[in-house]
Amino acid sequence: MNSTSPLDVGDHQHATFPDGLDLECGVHLPALDVAYRTYGQLSARRDNAIVICHAFTGDQYVAETHPQTGKPGWWARMVGPGRPIDTNRFFIICTNVLGGCMGSTGPRSLKPGSTERWGTDFPPITIRDMVRAQYKLVRSLGIERLFAVVGGSMGGMQALEWAVTYPDMMLAVMPIATAPYHSAQNIAFNEVGRQAIFADPDWYGGRYWEHNVVPARGLAVARMMAHITYLSEEALTRKFGRRVRRDPKDAQAPEASLAMFGDVFEVESYLRYQGSAFVRRFDANSYLTITRAMDWFDLAAEHDGELPAAFAGTPVRFCVVSFSSDWLFPTSTSRYLVRALNQAAANVSFVEIETDKGHDSFLLDEPDLDRTVRGFLCGVADHAGLA
Amino acid sequence: MNSTSPLDVGDHQHATFPDGLDLECGVHLPALDVAYRTYGQLSARRDNAIVICHAFTGDQYVAETHPQTGKPGWWARMVGPGRPIDTNRFFIICTNVLGGCMGSTGPRSLKPGSTERWGTDFPPITIRDMVRAQYKLVRSLGIERLFAVVGGSMGGMQALEWAVTYPDMMLAVMPIATAPYHSAQNIAFNEVGRQAIFADPDWYGGRYWEHNVVPARGLAVARMMAHITYLSEEALTRKFGRRVRRDPKDAQAPEASLAMFGDVFEVESYLRYQGSAFVRRFDANSYLTITRAMDWFDLAAEHDGELPAAFAGTPVRFCVVSFSSDWLFPTSTSRYLVRALNQAAANVSFVEIETDKGHDSFLLDEPDLDRTVRGFLCGVADHAGLA
Repeated sequence: MNSTSPLDVGDHQHATFPDGLDLECGVHLPALDVAYRTYGQLSARRDNAIVICHAFTGDQYVAETHPQTGKPGWWARMVGPGRPIDTNRFFIICTNVLGGCMGSTGPRSLKPGSTERWGTDFPPITIRDMVRAQYKLVRSLGIERLFAVVGGSMGGMQALEWAVTYPDMMLAVMPIATAPYHSAQNIAFNEVGRQAIFADPDWYGGRYWEHNVVPARGLAVARMMAHITYLSEEALTRKFGRRVRRDPKDAQAPEASLAMFGDVFEVESYLRYQGSAFVRRFDANSYLTITRAMDWFDLAAEHDGELPAAFAGTPVRFCVVSFSSDWLFPTSTSRYLVRALNQAAANVSFVEIETDKGHDSFLLDEPDLDRTVRGFLCGVADHAGLA
Repeated sequence: MNSTSPLDVGDHQHATFPDGLDLECGVHLPALDVAYRTYGQLSARRDNAIVICHAFTGDQYVAETHPQTGKPGWWARMVGPGRPIDTNRFFIICTNVLGGCMGSTGPRSLKPGSTERWGTDFPPITIRDMVRAQYKLVRSLGIERLFAVVGGSMGGMQALEWAVTYPDMMLAVMPIATAPYHSAQNIAFNEVGRQAIFADPDWYGGRYWEHNVVPARGLAVARMMAHITYLSEEALTRKFGRRVRRDPKDAQAPEASLAMFGDVFEVESYLRYQGSAFVRRFDANSYLTITRAMDWFDLAAEHDGELPAAFAGTPVRFCVVSFSSDWLFPTSTSRYLVRALNQAAANVSFVEIETDKGHDSFLLDEPDLDRTVRGFLCGVADHAGLA
């Protein structure tokens, strides 16, 4: 494992666009970097490219060992030779999102022509800005048209935004465990995470790097809370229940004092591990910037709240996937999306996968998801005469 | 409104028990104070007393203006003359829980014979310890037997614990929106709240009063998160949706910088208000102590995981109430409790109330709840020949 500090910008394969990017907020972002990884081979007809969009805290290391954590790619079980997203047939592109901290331009990047980081001066971005950065990369790779865009959670928001912003750029879009807008509850959880970061004594108004620290405690609290929302009550009960790591009687011993608040229950120990691992790889300002981009996300906003209008006349084939126990992006919202797509006369199929693993199901071993992804992509590819 | 500092112990009506309390952890707590309020009149036969147990952050001010916040009592709509819990017929007792911060002995209290506060030296307590403190008060009021014990959320845990610890002490028990154990998800949320407090720069290892501060930011983060769990997604959507307080374009303006993380969405503003109001009335060490008491709660633990054994032979009449949209203490767990009571051959009825207001429904205007509470209490009272 690489011992990269969470303050390091790191060195990741990337493309640089000296013309920058016009952001939705009106700011021109100069000198855009888009970090990315590809898997498989682009066909001679350049018609087999799939953009995979990562979730909030994911990155471009989809199907290979992560250079910083040493862990397998976040979707290694889904993407590879013979896998549901088959790199023998498809050419996969995954970028680190704009605003991220794995090599794409974001708050941890240096301001152009400066030795100063963006930090909290990084302009507010949107999901559409992320997609427009990806578009620039795709075009720079000589690809006129994608085969598909696939993503889960915030990656699914990007997939939907691709369909809305560039409806002629792809044959198919697969939004998984996602929604066409961020709900009040989603915004509420994001806000608690941000407040936890702001409350950290090492936050320093967002300029923590000047003190050679990161707001690790606040960021860990944010991650711990978010992690609960990624799982279901059933999954937490099955994995941990009320099991304790040490005898409750010890933990209740009078001399223990604050020790009674240590890692007593297994679920606490698990959450703390999740929190501490996260702060070693993720930037607090990226956390703020990206959560805010999610909060702004609402595909109906430009159409007076009429979601079908966002998809009017779309030629894209959609396959919407939800998970029955996902309470962060519930099936009911996916049904709302599917109804809107139907009203827009879009070609859409919908699969609700029965599982008790919650929102994170899209990352886990779910054979029904594998079958759905493989079936949809192969079906569209065969129909389109893809080699 | 009283301008009490969150550091003040305050002066509340209370009973002092110089013999103290033997806690489950083995510590003897000297000089127990139990703060309480009563409503209505104890009958000549002393047979009409109902103990109401408050929820986590509630207190004894059930049906009157709160002396510190100036707000109505937390269950004023339920308790009073002619109300579902009718003070013309019943004598109501509500204590501040052991470990609390409204006058009962807790971490903010002074150690006996000392000018030093307990703080983090306060011994770990359990729900049973809370109930045993209440029992002492009830007996000191000359009451041999209660008519009923009623409570929601953590108050429901206490009501169940009353039935298990003192099965001959009451005719009826009404646990509302609660569970016979704290789930992994419940523990997980509590742990995040505690970590938020520990991360606060004003925590000072739990001795914040020595610095004349309170860990207000961490405690507010804990409260904001907890508050989300008290509501349903539907309730948040209905109350706030994606409404913004200021123009998103302003919030996204480049010069705004950190301002884009201000109170932009109404739900954020609401949560921040909840957080800041809470830290003015609640003690951080009480937050830790009481959440831990909830975490330990598991009525089946003494019976090798067999919940029915906890209620074997109970003469108590139970009415279990749950709310369909409560995801913190879901109906499924109430059904599990009811099955255990049935297996124990207890007299039990069960009402699931259809509502989209989530866990907090027990505090809100729910006519079905009013009817259920009134109907059950009157039914048992009439059956028992209560005046």
